[in-house]
Amino acid sequence: MDVFIAGFGVVGQGITEVIRDKQELFIKHFGEKVRIVGAFDTKSLALDPSGLDPDELLKRKDSLGKVGKDEVSDDIVKLLQDTEYDLLLEVTPTNIKDGGAGYMHIHTALSAGRHVATSNKGPLALKFRELTELAERNRVHLRYEASVGGAMPVINLSRELLMGEEIASMRGILNGTCNFILHRMKEERFSFQFALREAQELGYAETDPSYDIDGIDSACKLAILANAIFDRDVTYADVSRTGIRGISEEAVALAAEHKQVIRLIGEVSKEKLEVAPRLVPAGHPLSIGGTLNIAQLLTDLAGDVTVVGRGAGRMETASALLSDILAILKNGETRRDAKR
Amino acid sequence: MDVFIAGFGVVGQGITEVIRDKQELFIKHFGEKVRIVGAFDTKSLALDPSGLDPDELLKRKDSLGKVGKDEVSDDIVKLLQDTEYDLLLEVTPTNIKDGGAGYMHIHTALSAGRHVATSNKGPLALKFRELTELAERNRVHLRYEASVGGAMPVINLSRELLMGEEIASMRGILNGTCNFILHRMKEERFSFQFALREAQELGYAETDPSYDIDGIDSACKLAILANAIFDRDVTYADVSRTGIRGISEEAVALAAEHKQVIRLIGEVSKEKLEVAPRLVPAGHPLSIGGTLNIAQLLTDLAGDVTVVGRGAGRMETASALLSDILAILKNGETRRDAKR
Repeated sequence: MDVFIAGFGVVGQGITEVIRDKQELFIKHFGEKVRIVGAFDTKSLALDPSGLDPDELLKRKDSLGKVGKDEVSDDIVKLLQDTEYDLLLEVTPTNIKDGGAGYMHIHTALSAGRHVATSNKGPLALKFRELTELAERNRVHLRYEASVGGAMPVINLSRELLMGEEIASMRGILNGTCNFILHRMKEERFSFQFALREAQELGYAETDPSYDIDGIDSACKLAILANAIFDRDVTYADVSRTGIRGISEEAVALAAEHKQVIRLIGEVSKEKLEVAPRLVPAGHPLSIGGTLNIAQLLTDLAGDVTVVGRGAGRMETASALLSDILAILKNGETRRDAKR
Repeated sequence: MDVFIAGFGVVGQGITEVIRDKQELFIKHFGEKVRIVGAFDTKSLALDPSGLDPDELLKRKDSLGKVGKDEVSDDIVKLLQDTEYDLLLEVTPTNIKDGGAGYMHIHTALSAGRHVATSNKGPLALKFRELTELAERNRVHLRYEASVGGAMPVINLSRELLMGEEIASMRGILNGTCNFILHRMKEERFSFQFALREAQELGYAETDPSYDIDGIDSACKLAILANAIFDRDVTYADVSRTGIRGISEEAVALAAEHKQVIRLIGEVSKEKLEVAPRLVPAGHPLSIGGTLNIAQLLTDLAGDVTVVGRGAGRMETASALLSDILAILKNGETRRDAKR
């Protein structure tokens, strides 16, 4: 299988390492290699139909700050249409205004009959139905486990392992930064501002933390889950959303007195679509601390099934992309097979 | 797909209800019905190649205490060899001495080229390699998600969703009864004996509780996980095993003073195979309370991935069997397809 990597930041580099290191696995289970035949970042393009050397890409990025030797084409659409590859790995940064370049990349690849696996929340939180229907029409896979909860495999768990269940609702912690802040406010009796500063110093929160602490990131992920698992047709703007800026030390202390903790919970069901701070009893799975993500699915037969994993990180996100690559290898013909 | 149900206790009745209620799902995803063509319990046999009515089986069991109108044959081996069906659902009680009737049922069905899905721990905790190799030779599926942790999908999670990961170790709580007792000893400051009596009154523990509290049940499940996920070749007797009989109120209180709880943890890796009470920090995923089961997998890319679910119960176990039925429908040809 030949892959094209759009975006060569932290996630792009992570998945490149993983593709380099897991060749034995691909050959063992599917009898074929996974080759990188193209990659671009904002500055440059690398292209070789016979396969690029992952180490060379990683070294060039590390030393020169760019993935390829060539100029990146002005016409990315033409590039993604005319190049030969089976799978686009779309790992450019999320743009939550209109889906940005990621939307264009995914749309182009699907239209050209290529599979897509992506970590990019923007296009899925804004244009989910359009893109999944485009994939269906072109009989290719669009997979996005990496867009929600990093290494917490909530989408594939729901859609594959729990395929026989009716899932009535999902409640979860979808943003590790907020959880870290709320956890530290309780454990160390920090103020919100102090805990936020600590999260920034540790690299968990951005200089502009609004995307995390105002619940935008959680709302994007919740919208994707609503569409993917609950067959709804929503965008992130449809999510009723309250962030954690207003959480006071007093509120956290009062909750603790009653053996409760405050957590930023996303909840989705057929009727509900909400991100908001909620009280959770200490000891309940959703009272989990640190930067972990968690999703609790309420099902008809199995009752509650809960999955916990690291919500972010280079290798964690690459791991989710890998699971989607494997699922595509397992379920679908690659484009080249179909051509034979 | 035609199924034969061996055993018609709580789990057999549960899966019969599920097969009755999920016909739409089978047809929607696979274009075929799942029919029950045979079922037996210790007293009786029901057999109809054109399909048995699930409600009739359930009603007869409920009113007369037996699933069928006919006498059960002395020669079950011949019955399982000569009857036409695609999948054996082996749901007789666990026999941990030699695998008992369950072993014989599974062996016979696999040898006859039939798929098997089972909730029966005994045969898998004792003769895992023999049975999985028999299935491979006969090109049929042997699936056993229901044998470990009820509705906690740890086997399918490890083998399917985490297929790309190297799993270095698994630590988990595999017995809900022990967890309930330890949880109550801490929360209510009960003695072990008192908490055990409560568990018995609530129906969580048997009159002879040894199988649970001496860690035998956990050890069986751990052996199955060792074989299934870590490619080891062990039986439950290979598990280093300490139960919870010796846990005193003082030990539980002392742990609590240090913000720790005592949990009966099963741990398996390439080197380790142990069930023993362990100290777990409060707030850690493994400090979970109640009768829940939990498994934490340490992987090379994703880090820790944790799954939590109900460890036992009629519908929970049936749910795990259903996931295996669906996987067989998805992955494999049914016997009838192959014959066409």
